[in-house]
Amino acid sequence: MASFIRQIPEGDNRERAVCADCGYVAYENPKVVVGSVIVADGQILMCRRAIEPRKGFWTLPAGYMELGETLEEGAAREAFEEAEAVITIDGILGVFSIARIGQVQVIFRARFTESGPPAFAAGPESLDVRLFAPDDIPWDEIAFPSVHWALKAWQAAGTGSIGRPAGNPPDDRRGVHRMPSESPFKQ
Amino acid sequence: MASFIRQIPEGDNRERAVCADCGYVAYENPKVVVGSVIVADGQILMCRRAIEPRKGFWTLPAGYMELGETLEEGAAREAFEEAEAVITIDGILGVFSIARIGQVQVIFRARFTESGPPAFAAGPESLDVRLFAPDDIPWDEIAFPSVHWALKAWQAAGTGSIGRPAGNPPDDRRGVHRMPSESPFKQ
Repeated sequence: MASFIRQIPEGDNRERAVCADCGYVAYENPKVVVGSVIVADGQILMCRRAIEPRKGFWTLPAGYMELGETLEEGAAREAFEEAEAVITIDGILGVFSIARIGQVQVIFRARFTESGPPAFAAGPESLDVRLFAPDDIPWDEIAFPSVHWALKAWQAAGTGSIGRPAGNPPDDRRGVHRMPSESPFKQ
Repeated sequence: MASFIRQIPEGDNRERAVCADCGYVAYENPKVVVGSVIVADGQILMCRRAIEPRKGFWTLPAGYMELGETLEEGAAREAFEEAEAVITIDGILGVFSIARIGQVQVIFRARFTESGPPAFAAGPESLDVRLFAPDDIPWDEIAFPSVHWALKAWQAAGTGSIGRPAGNPPDDRRGVHRMPSESPFKQ
């Protein structure tokens, strides 16, 4: 079994986990989460989480980007895995840094690719998937601060073309606040 | 020493590198590169690479985002490491996927924080650092396609407020082309 020690590899300037036996450097970098606000007739698709953390709370279809895919492909894959939704990406709504947990989140606005009644269903990581009108969004049961930020960015962007993406809000510039009690974002 | 095997962990849906001894799952995900087009009096700062790949070619100050920092903090750190430039971020110019090498690149527009003559110098990974007027940009000696894309996004955005970020160009939607001979981006 590998025994990792912390040391600065040659040509680097910070400590990494290095295997004491073979010298393998296990670089750890932030991970990218890709997701989307999927809009149909002014309503948006949300998923009720079937897994921890924040099981039972509402989120957007989103998850870790995988090797070999683009940001847009990852967001579309997550929409299918979590909500069985086949989507087309419109543009970037928000780009967020969650420094506390080493995440970058890229959230797109999207729509259902097929015309007609929206087709979706709960995937294995969702208890429920529903379309919400803007006035019915369950603000008190949102899973993560960044879901708030993305929904606010969607509301701010309106239905037209998407401009400058939202970043972290000024009162959580580095993504260090948790949900729900510490969050300054509850309505 | 760890002997990794490829298998699908419980609750996952794709093969990962799993340690045959202890079950540790080595998730491999795309890495984030952060960088900036640093503007001073209409000129932009570029670095001539002192290291492979593409040693001797020109690039923007950019590099891998580290744990514990935001996108903007990472871009500012890279500007200091590679060009000894202290910068202030204006906004996002481009968000690119380079699926071929598992990268996401977030490129900002920035300026020197201090007023007065721009202060910069070559860091250890740069042979040279220079300000280029738009007409003097060394288009034939650019290190990577995404540097082209970022420079084009900077030219398109102009000097005002930044709107929708650029994505990959339509003829390289997934970031699969290399520099220089295969590149469709040479001028």
